[in-house]
Amino acid sequence: MNWRESSEKVATALRADAAERDRAGALPVAEVELLRQSGLLELLSTDGWAAANEAARAVAAADASIGHLLGYHYLQQWRTGLFGPPAPSEPGWFWAGVSNPLDADLTMAPVGDAFVVDGFKTFATGAAVADRLVVSATLTGTGEKTTFVVDAHAPGLSYPGEWDNMGQRLTASGGVRFEGVRVEPADVLGVHPDDPVPPRLSLAALGFQLMLAQVYVGLGLGALDAAAVYTRDHARAWTLSGVASAADDPYILAGYGELLAMTRAAGYAVDAAVAALGAAEERGDDLTAEERAETAIVISTAKIAASRAAIETTSKVFEFTGARSTAGKYSFDRFWRNARTLTLHDPISYKAREVGDHFLRGTPPVPSGYS
Amino acid sequence: MNWRESSEKVATALRADAAERDRAGALPVAEVELLRQSGLLELLSTDGWAAANEAARAVAAADASIGHLLGYHYLQQWRTGLFGPPAPSEPGWFWAGVSNPLDADLTMAPVGDAFVVDGFKTFATGAAVADRLVVSATLTGTGEKTTFVVDAHAPGLSYPGEWDNMGQRLTASGGVRFEGVRVEPADVLGVHPDDPVPPRLSLAALGFQLMLAQVYVGLGLGALDAAAVYTRDHARAWTLSGVASAADDPYILAGYGELLAMTRAAGYAVDAAVAALGAAEERGDDLTAEERAETAIVISTAKIAASRAAIETTSKVFEFTGARSTAGKYSFDRFWRNARTLTLHDPISYKAREVGDHFLRGTPPVPSGYS
Amino acid sequence: MNWRESSEKVATALRADAAERDRAGALPVAEVELLRQSGLLELLSTDGWAAANEAARAVAAADASIGHLLGYHYLQQWRTGLFGPPAPSEPGWFWAGVSNPLDADLTMAPVGDAFVVDGFKTFATGAAVADRLVVSATLTGTGEKTTFVVDAHAPGLSYPGEWDNMGQRLTASGGVRFEGVRVEPADVLGVHPDDPVPPRLSLAALGFQLMLAQVYVGLGLGALDAAAVYTRDHARAWTLSGVASAADDPYILAGYGELLAMTRAAGYAVDAAVAALGAAEERGDDLTAEERAETAIVISTAKIAASRAAIETTSKVFEFTGARSTAGKYSFDRFWRNARTLTLHDPISYKAREVGDHFLRGTPPVPSGYS
Amino acid sequence: MNWRESSEKVATALRADAAERDRAGALPVAEVELLRQSGLLELLSTDGWAAANEAARAVAAADASIGHLLGYHYLQQWRTGLFGPPAPSEPGWFWAGVSNPLDADLTMAPVGDAFVVDGFKTFATGAAVADRLVVSATLTGTGEKTTFVVDAHAPGLSYPGEWDNMGQRLTASGGVRFEGVRVEPADVLGVHPDDPVPPRLSLAALGFQLMLAQVYVGLGLGALDAAAVYTRDHARAWTLSGVASAADDPYILAGYGELLAMTRAAGYAVDAAVAALGAAEERGDDLTAEERAETAIVISTAKIAASRAAIETTSKVFEFTGARSTAGKYSFDRFWRNARTLTLHDPISYKAREVGDHFLRGTPPVPSGYS
Repeated sequence: MNWRESSEKVATALRADAAERDRAGALPVAEVELLRQSGLLELLSTDGWAAANEAARAVAAADASIGHLLGYHYLQQWRTGLFGPPAPSEPGWFWAGVSNPLDADLTMAPVGDAFVVDGFKTFATGAAVADRLVVSATLTGTGEKTTFVVDAHAPGLSYPGEWDNMGQRLTASGGVRFEGVRVEPADVLGVHPDDPVPPRLSLAALGFQLMLAQVYVGLGLGALDAAAVYTRDHARAWTLSGVASAADDPYILAGYGELLAMTRAAGYAVDAAVAALGAAEERGDDLTAEERAETAIVISTAKIAASRAAIETTSKVFEFTGARSTAGKYSFDRFWRNARTLTLHDPISYKAREVGDHFLRGTPPVPSGYS
Repeated sequence: MNWRESSEKVATALRADAAERDRAGALPVAEVELLRQSGLLELLSTDGWAAANEAARAVAAADASIGHLLGYHYLQQWRTGLFGPPAPSEPGWFWAGVSNPLDADLTMAPVGDAFVVDGFKTFATGAAVADRLVVSATLTGTGEKTTFVVDAHAPGLSYPGEWDNMGQRLTASGGVRFEGVRVEPADVLGVHPDDPVPPRLSLAALGFQLMLAQVYVGLGLGALDAAAVYTRDHARAWTLSGVASAADDPYILAGYGELLAMTRAAGYAVDAAVAALGAAEERGDDLTAEERAETAIVISTAKIAASRAAIETTSKVFEFTGARSTAGKYSFDRFWRNARTLTLHDPISYKAREVGDHFLRGTPPVPSGYS
Repeated sequence: MNWRESSEKVATALRADAAERDRAGALPVAEVELLRQSGLLELLSTDGWAAANEAARAVAAADASIGHLLGYHYLQQWRTGLFGPPAPSEPGWFWAGVSNPLDADLTMAPVGDAFVVDGFKTFATGAAVADRLVVSATLTGTGEKTTFVVDAHAPGLSYPGEWDNMGQRLTASGGVRFEGVRVEPADVLGVHPDDPVPPRLSLAALGFQLMLAQVYVGLGLGALDAAAVYTRDHARAWTLSGVASAADDPYILAGYGELLAMTRAAGYAVDAAVAALGAAEERGDDLTAEERAETAIVISTAKIAASRAAIETTSKVFEFTGARSTAGKYSFDRFWRNARTLTLHDPISYKAREVGDHFLRGTPPVPSGYS
Repeated sequence: MNWRESSEKVATALRADAAERDRAGALPVAEVELLRQSGLLELLSTDGWAAANEAARAVAAADASIGHLLGYHYLQQWRTGLFGPPAPSEPGWFWAGVSNPLDADLTMAPVGDAFVVDGFKTFATGAAVADRLVVSATLTGTGEKTTFVVDAHAPGLSYPGEWDNMGQRLTASGGVRFEGVRVEPADVLGVHPDDPVPPRLSLAALGFQLMLAQVYVGLGLGALDAAAVYTRDHARAWTLSGVASAADDPYILAGYGELLAMTRAAGYAVDAAVAALGAAEERGDDLTAEERAETAIVISTAKIAASRAAIETTSKVFEFTGARSTAGKYSFDRFWRNARTLTLHDPISYKAREVGDHFLRGTPPVPSGYS
């Protein structure tokens, strides 16, 4: 089975009970195990960046939470390679990260020949079900930023954060507590000043932005797919429409076409962003600030388009499935709930401002946790 | 306490635990009791049509399910007056109806000096918690349409329909079964041919359309109100915004303004529809088909505007409250879930077609259960 | 002939050659004469504020430039009444104003027992074809603001400004030069500090905002009317549509319905704004700052809704008339050109911000030339 | 100078006086000569399909009429290659076509050893200024469709059609009259049944659809470029904005970003369509109906996205340039006039329907002059 078949198989399995699992809102232990068994967790190393992105989108179309987890898994592995050789991974390891820029930093103190990390971070997507974590912290003393890898089950790590959210319910996006967690020097990926971050390392934030856009596209496509099945198999022609079936309704047909056009155009923009970030990463230490800025704008453009498409699509498709499709058992609202939640990751208005300022005055996006 | 104060008091009480009650999704027994105690159930007879509409909107802003129930309660009382003197009501009686046009008709058979009604209807909003029902059926033999009033607890009536929906969860919109339910001649409001329905009686369908629009406006206003509280009290200024608080953010301020403009404009359109339907009802038997058509168009216009405003507003406000406002405890998604559910009552595209055809060619809307 | 018939007659006459006159772009001398002959110029004094607004909207639907001129004519007369008794007018006098807040002020210097005014102002809509002007200036010495009336043909007045614009081409919105223009004390309406402007006098700026919104609604309705004639009489059914005529096309029918809903809802909002401003004016010196703020918000809300509706409608209607309706002879683009031009009077984003800030924090709009 | 430099040079030259030339609305004789001198007319044969598309987009951004002419020139050359080897061309030849599917067909009658063509066709973009024409006709007798090449100055050809349109004014899109025009057998590209058209030949209609989308994207980009120059160099900060320059205005910055995201996403979709059509053409006679359908959908999707982006962008940019940018001398309205005109080529609602029907039920677009 090649990776496209594997991702389609995973998607099919997730689609089958996505509504029930969304309602239950449990930790995605079984889902991560499904990814593990599928072999998809190794895809970045075996088939590369573009394949990993494609798989994340396909899985997100079936279950946006799990697509989000898979995308971030790839992203965490990928970003370890920004510091040097990618961090070693074992078959079956699921990776997650701890780096919410809006929280106070974790502190990392040298103790003997190693380090000890303390603090609390929120919104650590996937960490509670992960094998390995990529973590950002601040060195006591120098105030430098550091990034390291740690076993997700290491002593001193705990996951008290309950994640009970209106959307992306299966992403285990609760908090992580570090209490005297020991980190070996060999697991430190790099140390760098906070400002300016070297262009190469600053690509990590762009990777998150891109992967969010990837999930948005998946969400739009997934909502369209699920709605189409319902329109074909369950929806009734409207009593005043004069047509024989919902699938003959002119408004429904054109409605699908408009949303597909918007969503697919966003998908092409995200494809271009995947290529741009891949190319920027390959530039290595030669990457200039200007190239970094151009890359950032391609990604931000895609993210805006994908965000608008996901919100519009996941809300509008109900007009093609009708009143009875709002029955609780279908949970079709999960597409909008997921899209609405995830598109708030950071405000789209400021992404638009960033793109506009670059266009109007050539202003480069200031590297940050979000740009 | 005047009725405006009463409706505000009810709204305040409902707002306080709307999120919890939405999650629980129980039958709205306590909520109907709250309406009963408030005196609002008598508002149509004491203060008239415009006041009843205003109260329904205000309650819907706090809890769209209960606003929906209250609006339909008034509507059912009001429509009994289309047949002659309004059906007598007792203080504290809560009214609902049974008339989903998409189901097979209930049958009403003359038996002795009375009638017996049999059948099953879905989507009987509020019936399971009502005191009195206004019911549509078809007379065996003649095939004429008939409308009657019945005690909601009469022998032979049962409410098996579970209502578990993504939105409008507290409207008790499950089904109603009639098994040999006895109806006295004195409780029959009227009998009329199915086609053409006399213009005066055909106003009933317009009343439903109007009351839906009323709830849509309430939903938009309610979402804006709830979001504003959060923006003021909880939202953080975006880290890259350069402003001190979320309430200073230029995008958030203008965003509220745009949605308010859209929602308030829809509200004015609905006000005009309330006046138009009131005037048509007062025309009584003099109401012409052309006047009826003009009235229908004013209502349909308002419904389209209100529907678009509710969907846009309830989804967009999250951009003014931010990522943390998606926490499950707030249930802010209920506004969109309610709006999305209720705006599917009948397809808005066909309302638009109806308005367009009247404008372009003077085509009168064909009286039906939805127009 | 009552005023509604008169305004309909004027509208019909203007509609007949609106395309040709738009292309020619001449000074609207004949058009003002048409208004003069119709008796509509006296409407504010004979039938009041609401009638004047309705007539301006009706004329704007036929020719937005002339509706704009008529609305501003009423507005100038109306604002003289904010200072005391309305300035006396003669039958047939056409009023305009000179007060662009973005230009340097005209200076008004006491000379003997009168005043002399000097300076240049741009965007003096209608002044070049007016009989009487209402003018704002600054008193030399005190720096106080003053408002006066002057004969539009008084010595020292000239209208060098060519007005050649993409839209509102017949509004004579060029500049006015004052060179030693003598103003009698009896023609001075009032003198007041620049900051704070007394609430009553500050209503003038709201009147402009309202009248702009009135023209926007007229533009939307006018575009729909013109398009409907074309769809009915000239448009072909699309070759792949399977319907017999363009007026049977489902997308065209629903398209009209959507735009009508948006435009009519905006119209109702503007109606409410007319009533609000009328009520505020009647409060006279008792008008509080808070009442003034509430009035301003009702008007701004209406203006946002009307602006969005006009832009959307005047651009979208072409999808209901088709490729051949873009022939130059029809000049159907004038609706959008007019709407796009006039909706830029002052930025709609700052109106939205104003409404949002009032909603969120109760911030009253700061009285200015635009709010 | 490579072709990118050439197309940029042409774009710069066209941009310099685009407003004046738009107003004059003359036959684009000088503009075609400019293309001729630039060497761009040979681009399809020297650098291929993708380069030709990119050049057409770049020129369309500067002047949508001339970009349209250039795109159709490439398209006509390209479509001759669907019948066999591409028709021979000479350096400097400008190609156009005559094939409006909505007119009655031209008739082609065998006379002696050649053919004689008669009839009249409208909307023959570029024909009046062309060197060679690709023409569709119907063979008398068999009723078969035929396509041939003819010298645009051949005896019997005349161009009476005045083209005076609100947009795309420089495309010479008037009519062409054929009166006994002689066509040699060697100039006949092919003869085929009308139904079914062989898949390969049916790609011609898709080429037109794609090239229209290409111009739409160019229009959006061109409007943004022109507006940005004005915002930077001429626009004033709004008086109530509190910022120092228009280019600091948060609404203007984010506004540009939103439109760029929409327009660039559409551009990526069109890029994908260019690749898809190129691949389909390379399949030659092996092209299956299913592959043809997939190709059509990729193109239709891109066309919908590009159409929506062009209409929205060309209208909205005025909010970033302000009231004074509506002065006639700038002719900034030409972007919207061009976009509005060209996006009506065939109704976008039916494109949306086509995409929706393919998605929902796998319905292949029926090959026609528009699909």
